[in-house]
Amino acid sequence: MRDGEVTRRRFLQSVGVSGGAGALFATMGALGLAPARAATPAFRPPQPSDFHLTGRAARKVVVLGAGIAGLTCAYELGKAGYDCTVLEARDIAGGRNLTVRGGTALTDLGGRTQRAAYSPGTYFNAGPARVAQWMVTLDYCRELGVPVEPFVNANADTLIYNEAAGPPVRMRTAKADLYGYVSELLAKATDQGALDGRLTAEDRQRLLAFLEDFGDIGAAHEYTGSTRRGFSSYPGAGEDAGTPLPGPASLSDVLASEVGRYLSFEFGYDQAMMMFQPVGGMDRIATALAAAAGRHRIRLGARVLTVTGRDADVVVTYRQGGREHAITADFCVAALPPHLLAKIPHNFSAEVSAALAAFVPFAAGKIGLEYRSRWWETDLRIYGGPTFTDLDITQIWYPSSGFHDRRGLVVGYYNFGEVAEAYGALSPAARTARAIEQGVKIHGAKYRTELASAFSVAWERMPHLEGAWAYPWSSFRPLLEPAGRVYFAGDWLSQAVAWQHGAFLSARAAVTALHQRVLTT
Amino acid sequence: MRDGEVTRRRFLQSVGVSGGAGALFATMGALGLAPARAATPAFRPPQPSDFHLTGRAARKVVVLGAGIAGLTCAYELGKAGYDCTVLEARDIAGGRNLTVRGGTALTDLGGRTQRAAYSPGTYFNAGPARVAQWMVTLDYCRELGVPVEPFVNANADTLIYNEAAGPPVRMRTAKADLYGYVSELLAKATDQGALDGRLTAEDRQRLLAFLEDFGDIGAAHEYTGSTRRGFSSYPGAGEDAGTPLPGPASLSDVLASEVGRYLSFEFGYDQAMMMFQPVGGMDRIATALAAAAGRHRIRLGARVLTVTGRDADVVVTYRQGGREHAITADFCVAALPPHLLAKIPHNFSAEVSAALAAFVPFAAGKIGLEYRSRWWETDLRIYGGPTFTDLDITQIWYPSSGFHDRRGLVVGYYNFGEVAEAYGALSPAARTARAIEQGVKIHGAKYRTELASAFSVAWERMPHLEGAWAYPWSSFRPLLEPAGRVYFAGDWLSQAVAWQHGAFLSARAAVTALHQRVLTT
Repeated sequence: MRDGEVTRRRFLQSVGVSGGAGALFATMGALGLAPARAATPAFRPPQPSDFHLTGRAARKVVVLGAGIAGLTCAYELGKAGYDCTVLEARDIAGGRNLTVRGGTALTDLGGRTQRAAYSPGTYFNAGPARVAQWMVTLDYCRELGVPVEPFVNANADTLIYNEAAGPPVRMRTAKADLYGYVSELLAKATDQGALDGRLTAEDRQRLLAFLEDFGDIGAAHEYTGSTRRGFSSYPGAGEDAGTPLPGPASLSDVLASEVGRYLSFEFGYDQAMMMFQPVGGMDRIATALAAAAGRHRIRLGARVLTVTGRDADVVVTYRQGGREHAITADFCVAALPPHLLAKIPHNFSAEVSAALAAFVPFAAGKIGLEYRSRWWETDLRIYGGPTFTDLDITQIWYPSSGFHDRRGLVVGYYNFGEVAEAYGALSPAARTARAIEQGVKIHGAKYRTELASAFSVAWERMPHLEGAWAYPWSSFRPLLEPAGRVYFAGDWLSQAVAWQHGAFLSARAAVTALHQRVLTT
Repeated sequence: MRDGEVTRRRFLQSVGVSGGAGALFATMGALGLAPARAATPAFRPPQPSDFHLTGRAARKVVVLGAGIAGLTCAYELGKAGYDCTVLEARDIAGGRNLTVRGGTALTDLGGRTQRAAYSPGTYFNAGPARVAQWMVTLDYCRELGVPVEPFVNANADTLIYNEAAGPPVRMRTAKADLYGYVSELLAKATDQGALDGRLTAEDRQRLLAFLEDFGDIGAAHEYTGSTRRGFSSYPGAGEDAGTPLPGPASLSDVLASEVGRYLSFEFGYDQAMMMFQPVGGMDRIATALAAAAGRHRIRLGARVLTVTGRDADVVVTYRQGGREHAITADFCVAALPPHLLAKIPHNFSAEVSAALAAFVPFAAGKIGLEYRSRWWETDLRIYGGPTFTDLDITQIWYPSSGFHDRRGLVVGYYNFGEVAEAYGALSPAARTARAIEQGVKIHGAKYRTELASAFSVAWERMPHLEGAWAYPWSSFRPLLEPAGRVYFAGDWLSQAVAWQHGAFLSARAAVTALHQRVLTT
């Protein structure tokens, strides 16, 4: 039996012992919640002892890009003693994990510089902002000691605003009306025997019991409103039973208002509550990860010029401080945006080059509006969450932290694709003006008069990123294998594009493959 | 023009200037969200200047009970200089606003004493635990400087467990299945023309578009599962698209499992997310309120013996420190539980006596289970929220704070009525044993083996409370007017029974009436 096989067996046996997703779902399986099989084996971080039995030693690795994937590679490989160097073109680690605070300055590809004038304590998560509870991102928060708090991704009291439909309505009102009418229609169809071919007598009875409760339609099977819609004045002291909101509108009007199109957002497997955020800003993760990987290992302002794989090593040249440098390592993990990596001179195979070139970057923009008062809490009783609109701002997010503080930061738009590009093409001041103009339609004059300052990011215009995320237009399978001694990692090589979860998992996959190779060849 | 009229006019004019609910909904009305009229005028706290024009002065008030209503009366009246004394039979202020920490000791009516063995930092909100964002409770948190954080009252990853239906299912799975089948049934009925009498062609098209999205049923109008159900292994690196959960079960089986009965909980106007809790324990509110009212004004261990209204004053006798005392005041606010107040010798009218006697206390119980590990987070990825069961424990609540801490407190039951009385009749140790036995059915052995300590409260057995809350079995209208110089206050005199919101608003109503009387007569 070769040493490599011993090591491999140990490696596989340790899966499920060290915790992580595999162990998690095995536990769930035992409870009947899930099958005991996980699609991806649980991640087992490399560790120094892995080398004891093999006579092998940790190697030198150059990591391209200090985004979440690159930092994770350096952090995880570093656990076993790999000598990692991370090259990062920007002057800050974290990639799109960017939190803007007072004083943050950014210059876009067009040379336009913004400097954030936010008050102390105010921050704006310009990139990723939320973490679902099943995501591995939370495991890294736990491991790195980054405290988390709820991120409000759904709230009954946020608004829906479709411009042609008139004044905004609360999410709870839209929900009550649609669920009420849907229940009424289905209950009546059931009553009339329209579903007799499909339902047994028992099914029918159970379905009707469900609908009466789900739609609050009563035994008459008629939706005539519900306390679930909310009140203009909530039930109070003595005999004050509250003032119900006017309505409901007719079924036709509710359908025509198109409020229903926003209701399924909160059902998404990646968007359903509960969701979380690091306390104090998303960059707490990047900062903790960079510190854990070792700050001295990260070369900032280091732009990669060439990547050349050779039989026994990889040579990467880069420009830093106005000078050209070269680094030679046993392995490389390329964790740059794929559309930028494709343009860097390299000696990858034609297949690998084509796979990289097939990624198409996507535009997205966000604006962080700091307000002098938290009028959304005091005037509208909205404590966090998204308001949905059919305006080009798409969404407005009220803050998930600092409740009852004096000031607060509202995300004035989070938009994608063409509308994001249109905003991105404007000057920062013009973006703010447009975002405010749109928000005033929903929130009235305070949306303008209470504004303290604004900062916007157009990700497709960010140097060294040039996109919010990137999708492959053909299979990325060639990139899941190393190109010689070069491995690839990033959310773009995962099924969770645009999520840090995808970056973490892709990095783990690259680390696992690289480490297994070192241990077994 | 009499001085009283000037004062009244000023009083009314100030409504809407001082903020609060009325101003809130006026703002909403201007935005088309609500009519500009509120059922209850905005509360205007008494203030010293109210007396300047009238030559009148603040009076002496004796408040019976240092629960939220009593403390609020003393606090609000104190703002204008009223000389308030609060008599509280228990040795702690706050009433049912009770947070148990390590060392908390309670002796029940049967003489059984529990002493909490919780670790430092662990706490158990044994009474009220959550605050909806529209509730006035949040205004008091803001005013008193009590920080708040989200309370998780709905979570896609908590469980539903109906004992006869087999293993627990995630909330998100139950939701996806029911919404999917409901959408399929209604879409098919629509396709088959069963609703043609009700829907225009446009309605039909819009309804179908809604259902396709709402139920994730696709253009075929057939529910065959959805990513919204969740995964046994979530989408990951590379081409790992995740492992969907097995299922869905057939429509018949989903209906028979009765998971649908828990889905409407989160639609309730008082239960819908977002909800909040004070950071560090619900008693932060009681503590802040007591401090703001003046600790020196609160006499603890002071049990009321008699209440005697006279033409010019009120005399209250009470027992404190083994001795009998009497206090004479201009007015009294009786903020005790109504069923206990009814038993105290008094000289109220027959009508008032009957109204008090018509309140019937209700039983409820809660148990706080401290665990050595947060297995619900690490093993099951449940970050807060309620699991619903048809067991006698009714619900299990995972904690809404301390995410990723080492330890955590799970509410092992929150039950009402007969099952609460059954638990209450057990010894504390037997309650714990039974709660654990039930929880093990859902969570397996860890529910027992990781337990560190437990503390339970049976509200119907709490001295000087003798109930979780009380409902009137006939009109309480006689108590909305003062009985001579005695005013009544408490959640029991509101439309928000069992909520602190009701206690605050009822106290405000009593304060407003008393102050208006002092200013105008």
